Amino acid sequence: MPLVRIGVLASGRGSNLQAIIAAIQARTIEASIAVVISNNQHSVALDRARHHGLEGVYIDPRACAQEPDPHQAYDRKILQVLEKFDVQLVTLAGYMKIVTPALIQAYQWRMMNIHPSLLPAFPRLNAQKQAMEWGAKISGCTVHFVTEGVDEGPIIIQASVPIQEEDTVETLSARILEQEHRVYPQAIQLFAEGKLSVEGRRVRIIDPGPN
Amino acid sequence: MPLVRIGVLASGRGSNLQAIIAAIQARTIEASIAVVISNNQHSVALDRARHHGLEGVYIDPRACAQEPDPHQAYDRKILQVLEKFDVQLVTLAGYMKIVTPALIQAYQWRMMNIHPSLLPAFPRLNAQKQAMEWGAKISGCTVHFVTEGVDEGPIIIQASVPIQEEDTVETLSARILEQEHRVYPQAIQLFAEGKLSVEGRRVRIIDPGPN
Repeated sequence: MPLVRIGVLASGRGSNLQAIIAAIQARTIEASIAVVISNNQHSVALDRARHHGLEGVYIDPRACAQEPDPHQAYDRKILQVLEKFDVQLVTLAGYMKIVTPALIQAYQWRMMNIHPSLLPAFPRLNAQKQAMEWGAKISGCTVHFVTEGVDEGPIIIQASVPIQEEDTVETLSARILEQEHRVYPQAIQLFAEGKLSVEGRRVRIIDPGPN
Repeated sequence: MPLVRIGVLASGRGSNLQAIIAAIQARTIEASIAVVISNNQHSVALDRARHHGLEGVYIDPRACAQEPDPHQAYDRKILQVLEKFDVQLVTLAGYMKIVTPALIQAYQWRMMNIHPSLLPAFPRLNAQKQAMEWGAKISGCTVHFVTEGVDEGPIIIQASVPIQEEDTVETLSARILEQEHRVYPQAIQLFAEGKLSVEGRRVRIIDPGPN
C-alpha cells in the first residue's frame, strides 16, 4: 500500500511535527510528509522540516493583505501548494491561523487538528490555562477533524491527563504535550489504514477488512 | 474525631447513597448519614435509608406550591430538617430539583453534587447522552461544591471514563456510575479530614496537619 502523503501546517516550534516525523521513522505510521507549510518565516517547524530533508514552504500572509478576503486568498495559496505536493491528509500542528472554508471543504474529513484539552471543554486559545483557572482536575487532548466550527469537528481520539495540585500552566502543558505526541500519530495511522468513518458528529473506528 | 454528619438529598434510586452507605460500613469514610431527604415519596433512596435503619424524610413539594416562591419555600423546609439532624455536609445524590440560594448559602462549601461528565463539558441533564451525541471519546464524572451556577461549582474530584465504539447511553452510564461510586466517598472523606480548601474556583487538597 502506498504511503499516505501528509501536509503539515505549523506556525511555531512544531513539536507535534517532530512526533509525526519520529513515528514515520519508527514505521509506526504508514505515511510520508509531502510538505510542511508555515505562515511564520521563523517557525522552528520549517527548520525541522529542512533538517529532515523535507519540503518546507513559507507563505507570507502579507502577500494576501490587499485581497478582498485575505484569509481566503491565503488559503487558496496553501491549497495550491497542497495540490502541487499531492497531499492526501492535512495535519494542523500548532497552526495559529484560522482555516477558511476554501481549505476545509477541499479537505473535508482529510484535515485534522490537535487541541490541548478534552473538547468540548476549553476550546480556542490557552486551553491549558483555561483548565487551570476553571479548577479542573482532569484535562487532556483531542485530535479532531477540522470543520468550520472552531474546535468543534468530529473527534477522532482523546487522551486524559490529570491536573495535579502543584501544577502550573507550563507543567500541565508539558504533561498534555506528551499525550499529544502519542495520539496524533495514532490518529494519522487510523486514517492511513482507512479506519475512520464520520457518521454525523461521531467518528467510527471501523475495520475496513482485507484490501 | 467525631464522625461528620451527612445529609443526603435524593430523588431516584439512590445508587450513590448506597455507595456512601457501603463506604461508611467499610469504614473507608469517617462519616455517618444523619438523614436522607427526598422530594419523591416513592424514591428507592428512601427505602434504602429505612432498610439501613437511617432516618428517611419525604418532603412534599406540593406543600409549598402556594408560596410566593415555592422553590425557596421548599428549601427552607429542607434546611429545617438538616438543622434538626445537625447535618454538617449535604450530598446531592441524584437529586432532581434545583437547589436555591437559601440552601446553598447556608451550606456554602459544605454541599456537594456529583455529575456524570467531566465538567465543564456536558452540564445539566442527560450528560451521558450529550457526550455520546457529541462524539466524545472520553467522558467521566465530577464531584463539585454546589454554587448558584448549575454544575459550575469548584471541582473536588474528577474521574475519566473511555467511551467505546459499541457503547450505548446505558452502557456508558453504567461505566461512569462505577467511577461515581468510587469518587463520591473519596470526596466525602477529604471533607471529613478537613483537607478541602476553596481558593477562587479551585479546590486545593491540603494537609491540615495533626489535630
